[in-house]
Amino acid sequence: MADPDTGAPSATYAARLESAARLLSGQGIDALLITPGPDLQYLTGSTMSSFERLTCLVVPATGQPRMIVPRLEVAALRGTALDDLDVAILPWIDGEDPHGMIVEAIGPDARAAIADAAPALHVLPLQARLGQPLALATDVLRELRMIKDEAEKAALRQAGAAIDRVHARMGEFLRAGRTESEVAASITAAIIEEGHTGAAFVIVGSGPHGADPHHEVSERVIARGDIVVIDIGGPVPAGYFSDCTRTYSIGEPDPAAAERIAILEEAQARAVATARPGATSGQVDAAARDHLAAHGLSEYFVHRTGHGIGLSVHEEPYIMTGGEQVLREGMAFSIEPGIYLPGEWGARIEDIVILTADGCEPVNRQPHRLTVLPG
Amino acid sequence: MADPDTGAPSATYAARLESAARLLSGQGIDALLITPGPDLQYLTGSTMSSFERLTCLVVPATGQPRMIVPRLEVAALRGTALDDLDVAILPWIDGEDPHGMIVEAIGPDARAAIADAAPALHVLPLQARLGQPLALATDVLRELRMIKDEAEKAALRQAGAAIDRVHARMGEFLRAGRTESEVAASITAAIIEEGHTGAAFVIVGSGPHGADPHHEVSERVIARGDIVVIDIGGPVPAGYFSDCTRTYSIGEPDPAAAERIAILEEAQARAVATARPGATSGQVDAAARDHLAAHGLSEYFVHRTGHGIGLSVHEEPYIMTGGEQVLREGMAFSIEPGIYLPGEWGARIEDIVILTADGCEPVNRQPHRLTVLPG
Repeated sequence: MADPDTGAPSATYAARLESAARLLSGQGIDALLITPGPDLQYLTGSTMSSFERLTCLVVPATGQPRMIVPRLEVAALRGTALDDLDVAILPWIDGEDPHGMIVEAIGPDARAAIADAAPALHVLPLQARLGQPLALATDVLRELRMIKDEAEKAALRQAGAAIDRVHARMGEFLRAGRTESEVAASITAAIIEEGHTGAAFVIVGSGPHGADPHHEVSERVIARGDIVVIDIGGPVPAGYFSDCTRTYSIGEPDPAAAERIAILEEAQARAVATARPGATSGQVDAAARDHLAAHGLSEYFVHRTGHGIGLSVHEEPYIMTGGEQVLREGMAFSIEPGIYLPGEWGARIEDIVILTADGCEPVNRQPHRLTVLPG
Repeated sequence: MADPDTGAPSATYAARLESAARLLSGQGIDALLITPGPDLQYLTGSTMSSFERLTCLVVPATGQPRMIVPRLEVAALRGTALDDLDVAILPWIDGEDPHGMIVEAIGPDARAAIADAAPALHVLPLQARLGQPLALATDVLRELRMIKDEAEKAALRQAGAAIDRVHARMGEFLRAGRTESEVAASITAAIIEEGHTGAAFVIVGSGPHGADPHHEVSERVIARGDIVVIDIGGPVPAGYFSDCTRTYSIGEPDPAAAERIAILEEAQARAVATARPGATSGQVDAAARDHLAAHGLSEYFVHRTGHGIGLSVHEEPYIMTGGEQVLREGMAFSIEPGIYLPGEWGARIEDIVILTADGCEPVNRQPHRLTVLPG
């Protein structure tokens, strides 16, 4: 059966669990400990969440995986891909010792790798009872999760098309006289209308606010002549994220700003042209960074060029200065250089790309240029 | 100045930072390491989030607190309470070593306590470079965060009133012929309309789905005669959460079900009557559990009676069987017994209460009885 949340067939998850176990053997690690989050979703389809009550999938290098689950969550597993997977469900009730159940399952001297997102609340008690230091699950799962299969690529394309439809409607939302918050509320509704299950982030950086790359929204009223950075995304039903930035001008832009944004557009295009199997993450970063530097703009580009994307908004590979990750077909990441003039304005252009056999396929297709909206 | 997100004056955070430092000295811990999440919000008002790029407030037992922050997040701190607090901001850029900055700040032999929510991605590299085992910050902050001050109580009352207004409108949303998902979408909009900044959870458990206490929503079509559990909540602007459950009947209920739900109503009332300073968390749990047991319903009550609430939906104190936490004035928690008849229906009644000098004040005021809506 297909998982009702993600739509992926159980066979996909069975194969991923087997691949993970194989990778463990090769790395001298005895077991993976996977708490709720993107790694659990990747391996089983489960989108459950938990915090203080431990849920943990235990994947041993050999033998049957087990899942330690609070008893009151067990019913929620029925009808998911876990029904069909060869995973033993071990329920526990309030007052029992789930950390002890894990130690018992893997042995106190096991070398285990735990999900990157696992909270200290569980990491520290487990570490205290295991004789060897915990490793990070990403050290094992990195290669699996970075290379997207056909269903994952389809989900990323679907997410890209959905967020493109929101950007295509930006003239409905973004106008002089509205506050950034009001614009963000309209965009949030559109993100859901266009096929996402939620809005994960909505950045509306108008005028000087655009010069802060992580500004979100404020009560600032948008004015004629503003340059506005709109960086938005969310998950589609399969759990994969969109993430796309375009820069808008409210009315005709200042010509000097427009000229610099055209340079940014070329920097982004050069990074896209560099992204192909065999290139390194650092080369992609340098393609954008060097073009900005050649035009005297390097001091205004204050962040990395991109990040991997999939079931997490940010995941490996990271596209940054000096990055040595060799890119491979099936990797998916953002290419999003920006320039930020403190106190004045900012601009960023971001597409998600998927690496093909000899280049890359952008999943976002809206025009990259500074888009002028009527004031 | 007041923090723009939380509305609390900077003096509140300055006092909390001082209290935390004092508690550290008393417990032989040299420093708190607080990553984004409710502990950071409690101590500084900051609602920032981060994952792979480390942000961490370092609170030493003596001396000035410091905050390690990615450089591109620094601008977002301006205008928050952190401007007025005696906290040194230490920015770092992609490629630098933020874990090393922390080890340098506290010394490699320091005994440190880290936020419960800190991800393994940061916990493990820090642990590897510190000579002593990390402790959990909750072991230090528990007493502070459990006892709510007047502003926190006011925020919890505001959240309670907001979610009560949503329950009061339930007849607009919950009708035969609609799917659980459709009802949940309407409720989500109402949660925001009534004063929350978002909907954190919306459980619509109709008919047999109500028998799974953690069921969320599905495409099941609600029918006449269904018993429906509605458990909803979200944060208000100050960051404090609402959480309230009521049980509804679509048309006149089956008399046997109604009789059992009346017993549940009495069980919830008995737990509320038991909640006062000096009682233990286990006594409050027992008050509800024993009443259900006296009517042969104990096997259908499969979870703890409640959980603390504040800047987190679930926090200490937990109200569970055998709990030894002595309750004190200012604690806030849910009282939410339920009964779950597998394959048939479920019911739960939940209020948040705040402990007063001699009893408790429920912040939720909608009627507890099984509310009959027109089919």
